Amino acid sequence: MSAPRFSTISFLSDYGHADEFVGVVHSVIRTLAPHVAVVDVGHGVPAHDVRAGGLQLARTVQYLAPGVVLAVVDPGVGTARRGIAVEVGDGASVLVGPDNGLLAPAVAMVGGATRVVELTSPTHRLEAPGPTFDGRDVFAPAAAHLCLGVPLDELGPEVDAATLRPGLVPLPQPEDGGLGAEVLWVDRYGNAQLNVGPDELDELGPEAAEVVAVRVEGTTRTARRARAYGDLAPGVLGLAVDSYGLLALVLDRRSAAAELGLAAGDGVTLLPVDEDGAGAEPSPGAAQPVELRRRG
Amino acid sequence: MSAPRFSTISFLSDYGHADEFVGVVHSVIRTLAPHVAVVDVGHGVPAHDVRAGGLQLARTVQYLAPGVVLAVVDPGVGTARRGIAVEVGDGASVLVGPDNGLLAPAVAMVGGATRVVELTSPTHRLEAPGPTFDGRDVFAPAAAHLCLGVPLDELGPEVDAATLRPGLVPLPQPEDGGLGAEVLWVDRYGNAQLNVGPDELDELGPEAAEVVAVRVEGTTRTARRARAYGDLAPGVLGLAVDSYGLLALVLDRRSAAAELGLAAGDGVTLLPVDEDGAGAEPSPGAAQPVELRRRG
Amino acid sequence: MSAPRFSTISFLSDYGHADEFVGVVHSVIRTLAPHVAVVDVGHGVPAHDVRAGGLQLARTVQYLAPGVVLAVVDPGVGTARRGIAVEVGDGASVLVGPDNGLLAPAVAMVGGATRVVELTSPTHRLEAPGPTFDGRDVFAPAAAHLCLGVPLDELGPEVDAATLRPGLVPLPQPEDGGLGAEVLWVDRYGNAQLNVGPDELDELGPEAAEVVAVRVEGTTRTARRARAYGDLAPGVLGLAVDSYGLLALVLDRRSAAAELGLAAGDGVTLLPVDEDGAGAEPSPGAAQPVELRRRG
Repeated sequence: MSAPRFSTISFLSDYGHADEFVGVVHSVIRTLAPHVAVVDVGHGVPAHDVRAGGLQLARTVQYLAPGVVLAVVDPGVGTARRGIAVEVGDGASVLVGPDNGLLAPAVAMVGGATRVVELTSPTHRLEAPGPTFDGRDVFAPAAAHLCLGVPLDELGPEVDAATLRPGLVPLPQPEDGGLGAEVLWVDRYGNAQLNVGPDELDELGPEAAEVVAVRVEGTTRTARRARAYGDLAPGVLGLAVDSYGLLALVLDRRSAAAELGLAAGDGVTLLPVDEDGAGAEPSPGAAQPVELRRRG
Repeated sequence: MSAPRFSTISFLSDYGHADEFVGVVHSVIRTLAPHVAVVDVGHGVPAHDVRAGGLQLARTVQYLAPGVVLAVVDPGVGTARRGIAVEVGDGASVLVGPDNGLLAPAVAMVGGATRVVELTSPTHRLEAPGPTFDGRDVFAPAAAHLCLGVPLDELGPEVDAATLRPGLVPLPQPEDGGLGAEVLWVDRYGNAQLNVGPDELDELGPEAAEVVAVRVEGTTRTARRARAYGDLAPGVLGLAVDSYGLLALVLDRRSAAAELGLAAGDGVTLLPVDEDGAGAEPSPGAAQPVELRRRG
Repeated sequence: MSAPRFSTISFLSDYGHADEFVGVVHSVIRTLAPHVAVVDVGHGVPAHDVRAGGLQLARTVQYLAPGVVLAVVDPGVGTARRGIAVEVGDGASVLVGPDNGLLAPAVAMVGGATRVVELTSPTHRLEAPGPTFDGRDVFAPAAAHLCLGVPLDELGPEVDAATLRPGLVPLPQPEDGGLGAEVLWVDRYGNAQLNVGPDELDELGPEAAEVVAVRVEGTTRTARRARAYGDLAPGVLGLAVDSYGLLALVLDRRSAAAELGLAAGDGVTLLPVDEDGAGAEPSPGAAQPVELRRRG
């Protein structure tokens, strides 16, 4: 018996809370490795949405306790896609899950893989009537065994990190003299996180430090740069640096995403506001669409 | 390094379970103070609803394990509203959260504050790209440090408890010879908790021990006093002492709130049933509206 | 003071996550028995749905850590229905909850009760203003005391296991030359678990190893036997052995239940596919209804 190595498993999935999937995974871990604390990162990833799960994991990975990260969004369960364990930080943590791009953005965030194995060991999984719940039968047991001190290479053969399925994170593109951005995430409050950092607004000119034009499906509004939601007057659309350092479209105590009709994956164009200031001062009380003339 | 002081953080918020907010707060605590167990009181408070969060905290505080209470419903995050830590019971517990009235009803329930500090210490918070997630960056670190034994006054300067923002809990008012009440909470089962205790029905006369008239938006029904949901015949509206000692409008295995069209914050008038007994015996099978003649 | 006996409470309920019911139960356990880890099996059982709760518990019980199982779906709370603690496996675990059939399928799964007591001890419950939240006031304290080492028979008088309310699990019935089945469970992904094991399809003939006709409300489709969801072409209805060993109607990355209009409790007839193969090869792209001729 090896000495315990990790005491935390951070667990993310698309299992939701209507069924018992999360609870059964917890139970498997509790049975195999009772010393482990399981921290639920989140289980509200939309069903089968590998991209959303990968983005959530990339956002959160910097805050997770050292140990094992168990991530399962796995529409290809039971097919030829591999199950993998990815060691990062020279062994500081190990990410466990399907090789479908889910882990890749987080692995990149923490400096890349130092070792990867494919989870093939029959002695480190549960017997199951069918291959439809690898979270329970393959990934949770692997995570628990890693916590117990089982060496990574006992879980299966090493694989070349270069063969892992990449995660695709969209980059903003130049578009119509501005930035073609994409909504990465709409949170519970309706804040719409974009794939754009605040520094990238510099190319829209100095007035972008105050106000930016936002075009969604042909309608253009102005958004006021804001530090906090509550700094915005009621109904005034804001563009704030969010808690992960990316720009988000926000309203004070209302859903900007609902107001603009935005969902994750939608395109948004950020443009300089007309130099003569048209539309730069939206009246409080409504996120008013404005006509925007192109900057000279 | 000080000796650990608390081993439980009871955590309430409006973060919901769709995103990773709850999980990131858990992770921050797990990283800073791995000996702590975080108990999730609830994260289903409606977004931004400080009143609902304050009521939930007041209902539950008597059941929480000694230690730190972390409560975050914080629409004013990043604005001038203060972050505070409120010591109660001469140090038995500390409540941490925004100074927006959220903590006040619970603090009152447990006897009032013995000391309060404003959370300003830069060494007891996380660096963050912006001030929109104080649950992660300010409140969770403060809670974790308190558990580790950091003295309250290291988290920031003491403030006068009298300057804290009060929580507003509505009281029933005399109305039309009865009680003008308010729905405090509609639970998952559709039970509608009122801001009325059972003793307050005495003023409606002796028959109120059996049956009470309930007026909602001009329509009056009779409600039968009941001890348990299952003591009510199908479809008969009941008025029960709920698990927190307040009166609630209930139906057996159905939602009274849906039946009556009630939501938290709505007004309800409780009246004596007509002395000649009209409407006092609703037929089973429907929560039948009845016309009520005023008493005496 | 007795020595601690169990360190895990596995907790299932219909409390949902909108309110604080789950959190208060955790808090009561944390206060009484701080050494205990509470594993949330699931709290998404539909409100008052004893059958769904009983099935969830029966599915999961084989995976739960040894210790106490706390299960609460309890529409009859406060009425004459008993609260019970059911010892199984000669003391390996104890199930605690209402005697309304909720525990029965799980108890049967693990070999039956070795001892049962009714939870009547006034010293092992919380005082409460009314009898509407026995999860908090009766069942959680009983579970915590069992973990602390309180002997089962201190919680109340022994009762005859034969007097417990049975759980009703429907069995498939012969129907029109096939099997009249029932949907036990629709999961988050829309997989519809049936009360039919794969061996029971043998009686539909050898072609049932490949394809089976599925009749729902008079419309018959063919379902292809599949090992994994991803083995199915887009839109092709599948019949897979699910993670609990029962057959489920599935689609790849889509909800079979939504496609077929199925909910838990609905009837489904499984029939042999016409011998000349009509309908045996549904075109990819749609779960196409087919007319089925009865097998010779």
